[in-house]
Amino acid sequence: MSSQFGTTLKVSIFGQSHSPAVGCVIEGLPSGFAVDTDELQRFMDRRAPGRNSWSTPRKEADAPRIVSGLNDHGATCGAPLAALIENTNTRSGDYDELRRVPRPGHADYTAWAKWHGAQDVPGGGHFSARLTAPLCVAGGIALQVLASKGVRVAAHVLQVEHVHDVPFDAQRNTEQSASHLARQIDSLERQHGTGAFPVLSDEAGTHMRAAIDAARRDGDSVGGVVECVACGMPAGVGGPRYDGVQGSIARIVFGIPAVRGLEFGAGFSVAGMRGSRNNDPYELRAGRPVPVSNNAGGTLGGITTGAPVLFRMAVKPTPSIAQPQASVDLEALQPATLEVRGRHDPCVAARAVPIAEAAMALALLDSWLSYPPALADWG
Amino acid sequence: MSSQFGTTLKVSIFGQSHSPAVGCVIEGLPSGFAVDTDELQRFMDRRAPGRNSWSTPRKEADAPRIVSGLNDHGATCGAPLAALIENTNTRSGDYDELRRVPRPGHADYTAWAKWHGAQDVPGGGHFSARLTAPLCVAGGIALQVLASKGVRVAAHVLQVEHVHDVPFDAQRNTEQSASHLARQIDSLERQHGTGAFPVLSDEAGTHMRAAIDAARRDGDSVGGVVECVACGMPAGVGGPRYDGVQGSIARIVFGIPAVRGLEFGAGFSVAGMRGSRNNDPYELRAGRPVPVSNNAGGTLGGITTGAPVLFRMAVKPTPSIAQPQASVDLEALQPATLEVRGRHDPCVAARAVPIAEAAMALALLDSWLSYPPALADWG
Amino acid sequence: MSSQFGTTLKVSIFGQSHSPAVGCVIEGLPSGFAVDTDELQRFMDRRAPGRNSWSTPRKEADAPRIVSGLNDHGATCGAPLAALIENTNTRSGDYDELRRVPRPGHADYTAWAKWHGAQDVPGGGHFSARLTAPLCVAGGIALQVLASKGVRVAAHVLQVEHVHDVPFDAQRNTEQSASHLARQIDSLERQHGTGAFPVLSDEAGTHMRAAIDAARRDGDSVGGVVECVACGMPAGVGGPRYDGVQGSIARIVFGIPAVRGLEFGAGFSVAGMRGSRNNDPYELRAGRPVPVSNNAGGTLGGITTGAPVLFRMAVKPTPSIAQPQASVDLEALQPATLEVRGRHDPCVAARAVPIAEAAMALALLDSWLSYPPALADWG
Amino acid sequence: MSSQFGTTLKVSIFGQSHSPAVGCVIEGLPSGFAVDTDELQRFMDRRAPGRNSWSTPRKEADAPRIVSGLNDHGATCGAPLAALIENTNTRSGDYDELRRVPRPGHADYTAWAKWHGAQDVPGGGHFSARLTAPLCVAGGIALQVLASKGVRVAAHVLQVEHVHDVPFDAQRNTEQSASHLARQIDSLERQHGTGAFPVLSDEAGTHMRAAIDAARRDGDSVGGVVECVACGMPAGVGGPRYDGVQGSIARIVFGIPAVRGLEFGAGFSVAGMRGSRNNDPYELRAGRPVPVSNNAGGTLGGITTGAPVLFRMAVKPTPSIAQPQASVDLEALQPATLEVRGRHDPCVAARAVPIAEAAMALALLDSWLSYPPALADWG
Repeated sequence: MSSQFGTTLKVSIFGQSHSPAVGCVIEGLPSGFAVDTDELQRFMDRRAPGRNSWSTPRKEADAPRIVSGLNDHGATCGAPLAALIENTNTRSGDYDELRRVPRPGHADYTAWAKWHGAQDVPGGGHFSARLTAPLCVAGGIALQVLASKGVRVAAHVLQVEHVHDVPFDAQRNTEQSASHLARQIDSLERQHGTGAFPVLSDEAGTHMRAAIDAARRDGDSVGGVVECVACGMPAGVGGPRYDGVQGSIARIVFGIPAVRGLEFGAGFSVAGMRGSRNNDPYELRAGRPVPVSNNAGGTLGGITTGAPVLFRMAVKPTPSIAQPQASVDLEALQPATLEVRGRHDPCVAARAVPIAEAAMALALLDSWLSYPPALADWG
Repeated sequence: MSSQFGTTLKVSIFGQSHSPAVGCVIEGLPSGFAVDTDELQRFMDRRAPGRNSWSTPRKEADAPRIVSGLNDHGATCGAPLAALIENTNTRSGDYDELRRVPRPGHADYTAWAKWHGAQDVPGGGHFSARLTAPLCVAGGIALQVLASKGVRVAAHVLQVEHVHDVPFDAQRNTEQSASHLARQIDSLERQHGTGAFPVLSDEAGTHMRAAIDAARRDGDSVGGVVECVACGMPAGVGGPRYDGVQGSIARIVFGIPAVRGLEFGAGFSVAGMRGSRNNDPYELRAGRPVPVSNNAGGTLGGITTGAPVLFRMAVKPTPSIAQPQASVDLEALQPATLEVRGRHDPCVAARAVPIAEAAMALALLDSWLSYPPALADWG
Repeated sequence: MSSQFGTTLKVSIFGQSHSPAVGCVIEGLPSGFAVDTDELQRFMDRRAPGRNSWSTPRKEADAPRIVSGLNDHGATCGAPLAALIENTNTRSGDYDELRRVPRPGHADYTAWAKWHGAQDVPGGGHFSARLTAPLCVAGGIALQVLASKGVRVAAHVLQVEHVHDVPFDAQRNTEQSASHLARQIDSLERQHGTGAFPVLSDEAGTHMRAAIDAARRDGDSVGGVVECVACGMPAGVGGPRYDGVQGSIARIVFGIPAVRGLEFGAGFSVAGMRGSRNNDPYELRAGRPVPVSNNAGGTLGGITTGAPVLFRMAVKPTPSIAQPQASVDLEALQPATLEVRGRHDPCVAARAVPIAEAAMALALLDSWLSYPPALADWG
Repeated sequence: MSSQFGTTLKVSIFGQSHSPAVGCVIEGLPSGFAVDTDELQRFMDRRAPGRNSWSTPRKEADAPRIVSGLNDHGATCGAPLAALIENTNTRSGDYDELRRVPRPGHADYTAWAKWHGAQDVPGGGHFSARLTAPLCVAGGIALQVLASKGVRVAAHVLQVEHVHDVPFDAQRNTEQSASHLARQIDSLERQHGTGAFPVLSDEAGTHMRAAIDAARRDGDSVGGVVECVACGMPAGVGGPRYDGVQGSIARIVFGIPAVRGLEFGAGFSVAGMRGSRNNDPYELRAGRPVPVSNNAGGTLGGITTGAPVLFRMAVKPTPSIAQPQASVDLEALQPATLEVRGRHDPCVAARAVPIAEAAMALALLDSWLSYPPALADWG
């Protein structure tokens, strides 16, 4: 089907919620790169549920096992890198009701319409958010490669329901805003592994968690927005039109379950702006042209400007809620009321933070490898 | 580079603003389909400038010449369909300043960073909005194929600066809203060829044109939002994850110059919603499950639900403005002030309306051909 | 890199000779197909070494574990199917010499030139014939799908050194030759699991084994030719030019280590023929046009004719031989003499028989799914 | 459909025998390369018919018009390069018989089975050898790029019916054979533009032309073999398995009408060899490892060795012959006898010589750009 993306760096994601394993195959990684598996595990832990108070207590072991692609010294060897995460709970349990009654907001009905009975029902099958785990394996490795080139990627929860975090200082592109942005990223990195809610403002985080708790108490869920930035990309990466940096990010981001919107730089607010305000003028800095503002979000014509690459993605409220919902029995062809059992994240925005970073890293690394700048010094 | 998209229906776009011609090659069209070239020309005319008061008086002849892909009866023959539009003005004129001083908001600087002198400068080269003409050739044919399957596609200007049009009635999915939506589409289609500003509310259109005129008088430009809908798609089209309907639309839309944001269905507003409100419950209609609301924008898990497919895209204000702007002389490596000469559209949103329809049609037709529903009856 | 093939049926092969595992990911299999894992294992056993007297006594466990892509009833569910084969011997042993001194006829030197030290050396890494095991997993499943559509695929050793087997009766396409060919395939299928040398003539097999034994005694190896046929393909499968049936087979076949030549139907002998003899005239049979001879090998213009698809591939003698060979020390940059230790197949043609069948099945199934006949009845 | 090939250098071929034009789109050419259009035209002339005594007197104007992809200084600008060749004879004439009665050896019947009436009948439509003209446009440009990197590509007719030319001195890889091979290539290049039959031995050429004339007098045609070599490729270009140099060449070569076989280096003769004879031992030359023989044909494991890349392709006798042939009336469903009118090349091998060079150049340049050596110095 369509579980692949990438041009030079090709990523193929496989697995279902309850299949023996989920995993990924990555082709086109630069060879000779020593993968830091401890760092990769720490990155995986940020996505995994059950590590903190604000997500589902369900615990998954997200320990990737790399089965190919490394040489006997632990460096990428030029061959495809494959990694697996075993699914510890592969018993299908009692999914008879879900076979017949699709959950509103899930892909149950569309999978049925597409495969008519052959689709894998338990846990949402291939549509499960579980599949973001192998995406993070690939992304975690891409992040390491980019870091070795001086590129930093970070994300945070910008919005939960009606609560907003401080945004990244990335709409300007002055030296002052660059150091501020660096400090913002430092602050997010310090939170890694602490189980803290990934925001820039502690106060916003407190209110967001309150909003999530309120929704949980109501048997309901809330949506959110994740903001992601990449600093340090050289100008000239990417290509025109349909496989540019924006499009490459978009293809991965819209493959993340629950994403309904994506914007770059000034995003939808450009609609209300005039050109004189939206255009990013250039100045010389250290002998190089630099845009002094960054409404463009780091790309023009699909190619990086050298300013921070910035996107925001809207994540819908978790469709699995404890309240009764109207649905249809596909076999009996009569109305049915569904109550989704089990414990679910009432807000997936926080867990989507490392996923956004993975998407950003994979799209940028692939763009760099596929469409490098003229004056590239890529090894 | 990256001027292609599509899986089964592969579209390759070529040309530059001032090259002898622009054009496209389309592989994978269903064979035996009689292309209506008059209808195609009418569709092209909707994108072409100089046809009405609200766009640039510059006149381009957007007459596509199909040079292959049809049999001797004018039907698609299974071979790639290639079409050309000659560029009547291919004299480069005096582009010496633009060679050295990149226009803010354009791809001039990023093209220089990427190709370092080899890029085609006049008119923006391959990055020119001129390249949306061959996209519309491909899209115009896709629209005809979809129409033969009962699918209607329409778009309108939803926003210009601070003026908003009435939205499509596509967030609900009742029978009542379906007929209302059909009447909205009828009303847009009646405007085709009249040079009317493509909106649902005449009053909104009047205010939008006033906002555009005001910007023009100021030597400035304004941004906007285009909303696009497709009705009549069966449930089950598309595939999971990275090549689903959302991602396929996104890849094309972010290849349209000036697009900075894209959202589906409820879009960014999902961030402020609870699941109990965002989930679209199902009911039975004529023996088939149907979502009664359409916050999902017609797709779940990358696969169509049968409800209208709906997206909105944000278009930035035209970067070419008459006001002086700060830039950099790339040769002298010193600051420079740029005044863009020539007559430019102060707002490209209206001309982006048929382009959005083309993107929608190409993505949906490719999804249908590549990932059909289980119970497909496609010829 | 380049370890993928296929258009709709996309196969990605991963692993190295001594990595923890080898495996494959298969996208685009028809959904709802019940995979017979016992039959798959029997197919794998035909490729595995150590099962009979004529191949290396080295024993590998080629037991594929399907970790995704099946629903909870064991049928393909529309999601990518991933399978792994654990490598039981992953200790790198003493490969220090091979790191420095490339084996003539192997990819050791070209991998060094390409990855300069990062390549995985032990056992040939990703270039190892071990990687034909996951190809056979994918091919074994494709064979089952084709069989359910009435297509039979078979191969045999046509030549070893100077000994020739009886060819398939597939250059004619009469009803008489069709039943003869069916009996030839029956006879090959009866040999499966018996450890017999896969030939049509017992006498040829005896002489071939003698030639192999003679080479082994000399510390040498011999080459061969494998012939492969597919019966029952409908006319109209495939497409023109670069992704036709011939090209699809070629891409996979030239990815099998040791293959140096490939021909279809009359193959290289067409060079000595006149058109009046090479052209395959048509006659009517049961109301359908049928070519009465099959010099074309079952395809014209990349599209199946309905006659048996037939190819032959030339397999070079195993490069690992016990005799001393001249090579170069890449570190010391001085001449070196290499003696390859270990037990190696002196002739890989027999083990290449199921690999050829896998290649044929994967190319034909992909062609069928990607470019079906106009009057297709594919589910 | 399938009229594309290439990974980084993507070539898309369009057109039919009698469509308004044939052409190609080439993405991924290195930017800043000045295309020599005169040299390109001379290359095109070598393929064009009607230039000499040994091919069809039918005259086609193969003058490519480059409509995009060059900057205003005539160098590649990074955008897709599109080129057109107008078809001067696009009148379909009386093709009613061919609509009903497929020509043996042509794709008429398979196109009918695939598209069932929608296929473009006149002149064979998209299956026509006319489509090798745009392949030569793309290949002619690739040859120029390779030449600027020191790579020479040449081909000659190795066999016509029972007459054989002297082969390239490329099975050895000594310094002596290298200078001999260079002189062979010089001698072929001196013939360009003279209308001479492209062979190394004048005597063989005389006998080949006699064989062709004899076939023509009999209203018949003859097959042949073309041998093609590329010198100067660095070691380390290409990738393992399914997209290696052999596979990339194969995909293009089997897209050339009439090709039935392809072999590299020692080719099918490896079947009769022992490993001790087939393996190419290494020696040091100017401080670099070099294989002293070249049975491998310049690639091991899909990657170049630095020795000449060598392939041979078998071209079947032209199926259009003047003798009556048995066929079937597809409408009346009754036997029919066909006599192909018009003047046709009785042997296409000579015209296939530049086509083979085009295929070699496109595959090698794409491999180089997609999978460069570790120590690449590609601009």
